[in-house]
Amino acid sequence: MSDRFSYPQALSPEEFRRLGSQVIEIAARHLETVVELPIRPVPPEEVKQQLLEQPLPREGRSPADMLAFLEQNLMPYARGNGHPGYMGWVISPPAHMAILTDLLGAAIDTNCGGGHPAATWLERCAIRWIKALLGYESPDSHGLLVSGGSMANLNAIAAARYAAARRAGWDIRQQGMCGGPDFVLYASRETHSCITKAVELMGMGQKAIRFMDTDEQYRIDLDALETAIAEDIRDGRVPFCIVGNAGTANTGAVDNLAALADICEKHDIWLHVDGSYGAFGVMDPRCADLFAGMDRADSIALDPHKWLSTPFDCGCVLVRDRHILRDCFSLMSPLIRQVGMDTDDLGAQHEYGLELSRSFRALKVWSVLSHVGVEGFRDTISRQNAMAADLADYVEQSDDLELLAPPVLSVVCFRYVPPALHADEERLNALNKDIVVKLQAEGRVYPSSTELEGRFTIRANIFHYAADRSDVDTLIEDVRRYGGELMQGSTP
Amino acid sequence: MSDRFSYPQALSPEEFRRLGSQVIEIAARHLETVVELPIRPVPPEEVKQQLLEQPLPREGRSPADMLAFLEQNLMPYARGNGHPGYMGWVISPPAHMAILTDLLGAAIDTNCGGGHPAATWLERCAIRWIKALLGYESPDSHGLLVSGGSMANLNAIAAARYAAARRAGWDIRQQGMCGGPDFVLYASRETHSCITKAVELMGMGQKAIRFMDTDEQYRIDLDALETAIAEDIRDGRVPFCIVGNAGTANTGAVDNLAALADICEKHDIWLHVDGSYGAFGVMDPRCADLFAGMDRADSIALDPHKWLSTPFDCGCVLVRDRHILRDCFSLMSPLIRQVGMDTDDLGAQHEYGLELSRSFRALKVWSVLSHVGVEGFRDTISRQNAMAADLADYVEQSDDLELLAPPVLSVVCFRYVPPALHADEERLNALNKDIVVKLQAEGRVYPSSTELEGRFTIRANIFHYAADRSDVDTLIEDVRRYGGELMQGSTP
Repeated sequence: MSDRFSYPQALSPEEFRRLGSQVIEIAARHLETVVELPIRPVPPEEVKQQLLEQPLPREGRSPADMLAFLEQNLMPYARGNGHPGYMGWVISPPAHMAILTDLLGAAIDTNCGGGHPAATWLERCAIRWIKALLGYESPDSHGLLVSGGSMANLNAIAAARYAAARRAGWDIRQQGMCGGPDFVLYASRETHSCITKAVELMGMGQKAIRFMDTDEQYRIDLDALETAIAEDIRDGRVPFCIVGNAGTANTGAVDNLAALADICEKHDIWLHVDGSYGAFGVMDPRCADLFAGMDRADSIALDPHKWLSTPFDCGCVLVRDRHILRDCFSLMSPLIRQVGMDTDDLGAQHEYGLELSRSFRALKVWSVLSHVGVEGFRDTISRQNAMAADLADYVEQSDDLELLAPPVLSVVCFRYVPPALHADEERLNALNKDIVVKLQAEGRVYPSSTELEGRFTIRANIFHYAADRSDVDTLIEDVRRYGGELMQGSTP
Repeated sequence: MSDRFSYPQALSPEEFRRLGSQVIEIAARHLETVVELPIRPVPPEEVKQQLLEQPLPREGRSPADMLAFLEQNLMPYARGNGHPGYMGWVISPPAHMAILTDLLGAAIDTNCGGGHPAATWLERCAIRWIKALLGYESPDSHGLLVSGGSMANLNAIAAARYAAARRAGWDIRQQGMCGGPDFVLYASRETHSCITKAVELMGMGQKAIRFMDTDEQYRIDLDALETAIAEDIRDGRVPFCIVGNAGTANTGAVDNLAALADICEKHDIWLHVDGSYGAFGVMDPRCADLFAGMDRADSIALDPHKWLSTPFDCGCVLVRDRHILRDCFSLMSPLIRQVGMDTDDLGAQHEYGLELSRSFRALKVWSVLSHVGVEGFRDTISRQNAMAADLADYVEQSDDLELLAPPVLSVVCFRYVPPALHADEERLNALNKDIVVKLQAEGRVYPSSTELEGRFTIRANIFHYAADRSDVDTLIEDVRRYGGELMQGSTP
């Protein structure tokens, strides 16, 4: 056999070790210094051009040169989520052991579509762990690791449609939507846009979604929901899915899942819970009651790459009855089938979703839960939620700040309301938008923004495991400082 | 600020360096020794139980303990694609520099959904490189890195449907399938099952697919296709997409893409090319002509995690007119939008597909192309295709072997035909199946299998960058050896 390390795709073992230690050093320095960098550094124009305009390499480039390029042009211009002051959207920092073990996953590069390599068993273990964390452990339940909340929600809604079609005697896989039941899905207006994208992609159209109003806590209005369902049934439509939010990305609102489960039971509707952001919030004893009923869901979408701090990407869909998910997606062909392999009751992972080749996401879940442990995550999540509650209290007690949504999990929605702008919604919106732009450009902490009932909202998600009281204080200080400066600047 | 390395998600910089060097050592040993392991080791029952039955950790486990666990229970039981004798399905070994740089990607953990971190510019560079490799560079073309061929094909077919609906004045995103045009998609019977899964998920049903027969080279029958299109148009259906294969996974067949492009042009149909396995075959000068017409496609699905040897996962969809893909998928909300950011003409990556949070796949593409270079890949691909052609020649010249499909790219389909079983299809199928089971269980090389016209087929894909003539010889030897033994064993 020729020297298999002489091919350009390979490095000799010595080179691999030498370059590997450089890579570890570059990563370690990044993790050490990320807190000293601007929180969201924008690459200067010349770096941007360097990155964009690299010519397609005809001949291979030296590894040393490559690492120098990345150290100079990539590492300093990351997204900021490694910084404890990062409070944007729902983006966590990566847990350190998972950074390291990802390399082992890349080295074995197992296609986790099926078969019986070690990765398959580790994925089943990871799914069992996630089910246990959520108290979602009925005997036929199962799950699949996917690329994130968008895919998890898509998978779940597809299963919901499949189940409803089958009950109606309609072969949805063969016949598609046309001529079949007129399906309707219900969700609150606060529901994430990926639900809409999923329904659109599934050929149902936005018209298949009834967006329900919410109560003052941004939870789905149950009376309105019951009325809508009754109307749809009366008009011959088929309610097939209710999406309950276990933590909206906007405000952290948790719908009344137990009430939704009752409604679903009554009408034989699939209850899907979108817990992409918030499902792991159930681990915080102070919040656990909010999630009552989640264990009755037919499916749950959740994201280990959010609160569990796995590196991207790692989402997960859980289903109460795995047979439905499998019947919805499984498509074997002579090419795919591995002859002579004993398949067990669970079959291959690819039968539960869209992807055939699959990356080794289970290693990320295993790594973070093994290293941090359940109690470690419980502490983190509880501390973050408590800091959010404290921040909300402080905002409520402050004359120049206004709380725009009740705090539920780690998100706080508020705005700066200087007395001079009292009730001037237009100028308040403009001012708060300018504050966020300033904060994101040069602040010491980094919130994102949203809109709540037409009001521009500063949205801070306390989501870094190392965020502490000082970061929250900095947020308030900077909001007031930029707000004050902007008010002065705008004085006629 | 409290010590941010004291949290359980973190490692101190010293620990990170120390454990990092252990991880590099474990990975290096794996890459060195993978060739000495069984080609597809099955974890023994006690290892399987170890992996499956780990209790959910209440408290964190020590990193040293974790690495020891992985070294013992995970690394030795990978999938085999790291071994040069692995010839199963379409699964490549990982390129070594990409294994290393993946760790840097995990360390910065950039969400590549949008915004202007360095990762965004590197992704645009990677897309430009891929377009250049394929000669697919019209001015409005663009692309998106996705999790693999299944997602790439789904994205492309969704864009095709969107384009056809818009032309028909039908708002598919709002209205869905029902009441709209009766869409039809055409593809050869040899097309990958993920196309069917995509069409099903999109609510069109399998009935929306016309599977066309193939010619003796397993390419789509163009006359049958023209007839089917004419019939469908006559009957009021709307042909919206033709899927051309640029290398079927079964046999490597490349449809006549130029003829398909002509047909599409004539009837205003979207031409989608599924090049998940084979698109990079265009880099082999001996094969380039086969791909004529690929540059006229409206979309192409391809997989850097196949022939470019990136670690999982990395697929890609390219489109000729990026506006269509964006109009099909883009859904902005106040929560998602980043205020005050200058957006350029291309917008955010998440607007081109389903995923909002996205992993940093561009780093994989950048790493393999930077290290290996275009000429390095051209050599690899050309050598693999040439070895496949030589193997096919040898099979054709051998009385006890039968070639079941003409060799096109790196796949060879054949079977063992001992004179005693001449024309006994049933026993030939059983025998060849047993040969594959034996080979996969204990052979020195590892083919997979498929069916071609009812005949059980040994399918060898010469896809490891370090595969050489000795591996091909071993395949033939082992097929004959196991075939002979099985024949002897079955003698009454």
